[in-house]
Amino acid sequence: MKFKMKNLTPAQYLVSGYFVIIMIGSILLMLPIATNDGQGLGIIDAVFTATSATCVTGLIVVNTKEAFTIFGSTVIMLLIQIGGLGIMSMSTLFAFVIGKKISLKERLIIQEDLNQYQISGMVRLVQYLLGFTFTIEGTAAAILFLRLSQDYSFWKAVYLSIFHSVSAFNNAGFDLFGNSLENFAGDITINFVIMALIILGGIGFGVMLEVYNRVKFKKTTLQTKIVVIITLIMLLVGFILMFGLEYNNTMRGLPLLDKILSAMFLSVTPRTAGFNTLPTGQLRQSSLFLIIVLMFIGASPGSTGGGIKTTTFGVMMVTLKNMVTGKEDMEVYNRRFEKQIIYKAFTITMLSAGLVVLVTTLLLIIEDFSFLDVLFETVSAFGTVGLSTGITGHLSDLSRVLITITMFAGRVGPLTLAVAIGEKQRKGTYHYPTEKVMVG
Amino acid sequence: MKFKMKNLTPAQYLVSGYFVIIMIGSILLMLPIATNDGQGLGIIDAVFTATSATCVTGLIVVNTKEAFTIFGSTVIMLLIQIGGLGIMSMSTLFAFVIGKKISLKERLIIQEDLNQYQISGMVRLVQYLLGFTFTIEGTAAAILFLRLSQDYSFWKAVYLSIFHSVSAFNNAGFDLFGNSLENFAGDITINFVIMALIILGGIGFGVMLEVYNRVKFKKTTLQTKIVVIITLIMLLVGFILMFGLEYNNTMRGLPLLDKILSAMFLSVTPRTAGFNTLPTGQLRQSSLFLIIVLMFIGASPGSTGGGIKTTTFGVMMVTLKNMVTGKEDMEVYNRRFEKQIIYKAFTITMLSAGLVVLVTTLLLIIEDFSFLDVLFETVSAFGTVGLSTGITGHLSDLSRVLITITMFAGRVGPLTLAVAIGEKQRKGTYHYPTEKVMVG
Ligand SMILES: [K+]
Ligand SMILES: [K+]
Repeated sequence: MKFKMKNLTPAQYLVSGYFVIIMIGSILLMLPIATNDGQGLGIIDAVFTATSATCVTGLIVVNTKEAFTIFGSTVIMLLIQIGGLGIMSMSTLFAFVIGKKISLKERLIIQEDLNQYQISGMVRLVQYLLGFTFTIEGTAAAILFLRLSQDYSFWKAVYLSIFHSVSAFNNAGFDLFGNSLENFAGDITINFVIMALIILGGIGFGVMLEVYNRVKFKKTTLQTKIVVIITLIMLLVGFILMFGLEYNNTMRGLPLLDKILSAMFLSVTPRTAGFNTLPTGQLRQSSLFLIIVLMFIGASPGSTGGGIKTTTFGVMMVTLKNMVTGKEDMEVYNRRFEKQIIYKAFTITMLSAGLVVLVTTLLLIIEDFSFLDVLFETVSAFGTVGLSTGITGHLSDLSRVLITITMFAGRVGPLTLAVAIGEKQRKGTYHYPTEKVMVG
Repeated sequence: MKFKMKNLTPAQYLVSGYFVIIMIGSILLMLPIATNDGQGLGIIDAVFTATSATCVTGLIVVNTKEAFTIFGSTVIMLLIQIGGLGIMSMSTLFAFVIGKKISLKERLIIQEDLNQYQISGMVRLVQYLLGFTFTIEGTAAAILFLRLSQDYSFWKAVYLSIFHSVSAFNNAGFDLFGNSLENFAGDITINFVIMALIILGGIGFGVMLEVYNRVKFKKTTLQTKIVVIITLIMLLVGFILMFGLEYNNTMRGLPLLDKILSAMFLSVTPRTAGFNTLPTGQLRQSSLFLIIVLMFIGASPGSTGGGIKTTTFGVMMVTLKNMVTGKEDMEVYNRRFEKQIIYKAFTITMLSAGLVVLVTTLLLIIEDFSFLDVLFETVSAFGTVGLSTGITGHLSDLSRVLITITMFAGRVGPLTLAVAIGEKQRKGTYHYPTEKVMVG
């Protein structure tokens, strides 16, 4: 066993870990006690739902509120929590490894040598992670309870508060209201708590840790600067455009304050929460297209969110700016990026775009839905967002399998790539001569 | 005058040259003798048509056959020829400059010093270019005449042969049949002559020159290898998918040979000719999406075609492959790319994608057409392709202006960028320290 484990690369650990959890979750959701009809889910829908929960995507083929018993929805909540913690700890770990310039393999070997210092560092990391997560989720659940206990019985309100706090912090997007948060479009408490959870969950554990440590006067890393700036830009641009585009569409008739609240929520949810307060299927085509772009970029590394990540986008934007202004070094904030990081950012983006194009094409061949609906669904699955114009439940079995694979690939893909590329990178023994090629 | 000219960068020369030609063309198309109704075109449609012709795009807001007199269509043909030759000579020139590692500015200065060798090199280049162009166009026109003289009177057939030969070789996509080549879906002569013109025109003058010179035993450049390989892959993938997707759709009822011919044409025309033998608006969504991807990639540098270019795509694919397989150098065919070429390829692609996203969003806000139609139209305009699902003639004035700008940007943009980036590139006086950022 130990021998076998040693042969796995960290990327393979990650993929197999997720795979095992999804399999266990699927089996649990197929049990008769999981669903209200007493029959359990069919295998395709069970795997779909377990993948959607574990990958914190939030796309659903059965209505979570109506289909599942308390047992079923608790399984989903646990899958969300495990999936969210898993991705946060794994990617934070990798980020630390990258920061310290030693490979994970070296670190694992060091561990096996029982180097207490390293292990205690990891243990502390996990302690921090669990501490942050449960503190934030607990606080949010308490506030949600104050609001929800007005509408629901005590225990019902407790359960709903915990479920939605976990779902929101992990950017999972699962809900037990039956229509996401559409009943709460103008509810300030619900909106702000959920938005805060989404942003905290999506900003990345590394950044949270750094902000926390900053109180102890440490310097801000480039990573944190980029995450914060790009996230703010996405929120601001999203808010302004959504407000303008939906003012006379889905927001027609709402009071001004509710319009502002709804536009804020619309700009936050593609980071990649998946809750909605307005009916997604009725948004304008231009709004949906904008959301597609935001979902593709997604959240930040070390977070529960998906997408190509804000830092990937940031590195590309810095490269663009420096190329257009004619700099040779790719500089930002008095630091420069090594070419391997830039290559990596573009590689992740191109492969992600390739996956989206492939899946979209396949779905277009299989299904009769409009191009926009299909592209939206695919990017939502890839970015583990979980928003949908409403076609998920009407997909054929083959399409459900495709979307399941896309959710899985979107969850483990970019991170695995990022790690796998780092692992394998090796110096060539010799360099070929360069030859120029005209591009553009 | 001379003083002013000196202050223009080569990129600015290119842009102002195109601008002046478009303005002259617009004025000519506004003359009463240009249109059959004796009123000339309105200013917006005149600028649209002149831009479409000069940028060899081929999108039309008025039916070329019905609207224009012989004078009008001859103006269009001349704009196509000037625009096509301009882009071929400029980009070939830039490619040579890049190949010889001296800047165009240096070369222009050398010229001003009356260095006969340099000038004679340029004169020879232009001679070659004109020779190739008129030889190919003349030969093709002669073959087209043999076929068209069966259906049309002598002089009509002569004019039609020349017009379509010029339009096809320059990848312009303008036609005088009223419905592109839909009447000739199964016509072997027309199909093969037009496809040959499109491919030759789209493969780039540099490659043609090299193949021509190869007879004299020179080595094949990396540029040529990439162009040929990527072009072949795009043709093959396009053919197979189009054949499969449209077999039971737009090709239903056609004999097998015509189906094969139609699929071949569909795979060739996005490189960026813009002719169609099947009604574009009736293609499946999946086919249209595939065509969008092919149009975005486009043709090769030094050709009359648009898009981000096959070499740009090739450089990115090589980078992807090397990153995923863990190479440090970006190698292909025993050569490696310098990081600046890779940055340039990704920069051009990202800025192009950014332009497409921006224009698509604006059009979606203005118009009520479906997302797929609008995206198709935008990429077609950007890639100077000229295919349309049929919405061009129904666009509002504001949208026509937007598409005009997009055609212009798509024509001069990537090349200008490629040159401008090369021009301005300078070594920094000092390097900032690197800092790692986690992407993906
Ligand atoms: K989600
Ligand atoms: K064209």
